Amino acid sequence: MQKGLAMDEVPGSVGTSASFSLRLGQAIFSSASLLFMSLGVEFYSYTAFCYLVTVMGLVIPWSFTLALVDGYSVLVKCPLRQPGILLIIVVGDWVLSILTLAAACSTTSVVDIMLHANGPYCPPKFCSRYKISAAMAFMSWFLSLASSFFNLWLLPSL
Amino acid sequence: MQKGLAMDEVPGSVGTSASFSLRLGQAIFSSASLLFMSLGVEFYSYTAFCYLVTVMGLVIPWSFTLALVDGYSVLVKCPLRQPGILLIIVVGDWVLSILTLAAACSTTSVVDIMLHANGPYCPPKFCSRYKISAAMAFMSWFLSLASSFFNLWLLPSL
Repeated sequence: MQKGLAMDEVPGSVGTSASFSLRLGQAIFSSASLLFMSLGVEFYSYTAFCYLVTVMGLVIPWSFTLALVDGYSVLVKCPLRQPGILLIIVVGDWVLSILTLAAACSTTSVVDIMLHANGPYCPPKFCSRYKISAAMAFMSWFLSLASSFFNLWLLPSL
Repeated sequence: MQKGLAMDEVPGSVGTSASFSLRLGQAIFSSASLLFMSLGVEFYSYTAFCYLVTVMGLVIPWSFTLALVDGYSVLVKCPLRQPGILLIIVVGDWVLSILTLAAACSTTSVVDIMLHANGPYCPPKFCSRYKISAAMAFMSWFLSLASSFFNLWLLPSL
């Protein structure tokens, strides 16, 4: 699988500018999801919404820290190439992306049951915020899946 | 990464008896999930339940076919070692495990809102079947994730 070439050429792995953009996008989307869900909306009466807030509270510091690491690596032009740290990043990314997907799906299905079936009443202003929050969570999941794939691709070459 | 050793030693990859057990478990759990959700219960009024039935309708033939392939490989003692086919299996496993996780989470959150919040009424007999169906879907997701990890591990050594 082109071992020699893959070492420094994987775009989107830790320490590249593409990875910095991915991490920044994750942090922005998950913060937006958290803000739309928690500000001015009563989220604490539904388990799925509380779960989304919890997961986003885990994803935001993770993405933000890794964005800082990537930004520093790009600035000093010295990418991170230690298998142990990379393994921790890959495992953390996988776990968080699974949790984010679960939270996004749960939120979406609760919003769907509020809108269509004979579920609990939901004022239109709240419902649109729930919907935006779920969409942001899906975007954050997609970016997180992308970074974990890129890092997993780099892992065997170390 | 111990290249020479990894070739035939990965337990759970395509063509081993561990993989046969995993596939059989996936087929059994997803069939149980489908049966508990669709027989004698009105599932078609909720989007999440319809989605679960659709996804299980995809997972069952996939797992069953791969269980047959694995069983044949074990019997003739000739494991499948073609990168193209293995890549298709890995990608299909990932996609199906993501879909299964999404379906299981959606079903669980709908069941939760039926039980606790002021949601739509759910007769106790139906509710327990919904719960069992969601649990079976989670088990099927877990086994599917395990097989896709084992096959992904084998992929770079081909």
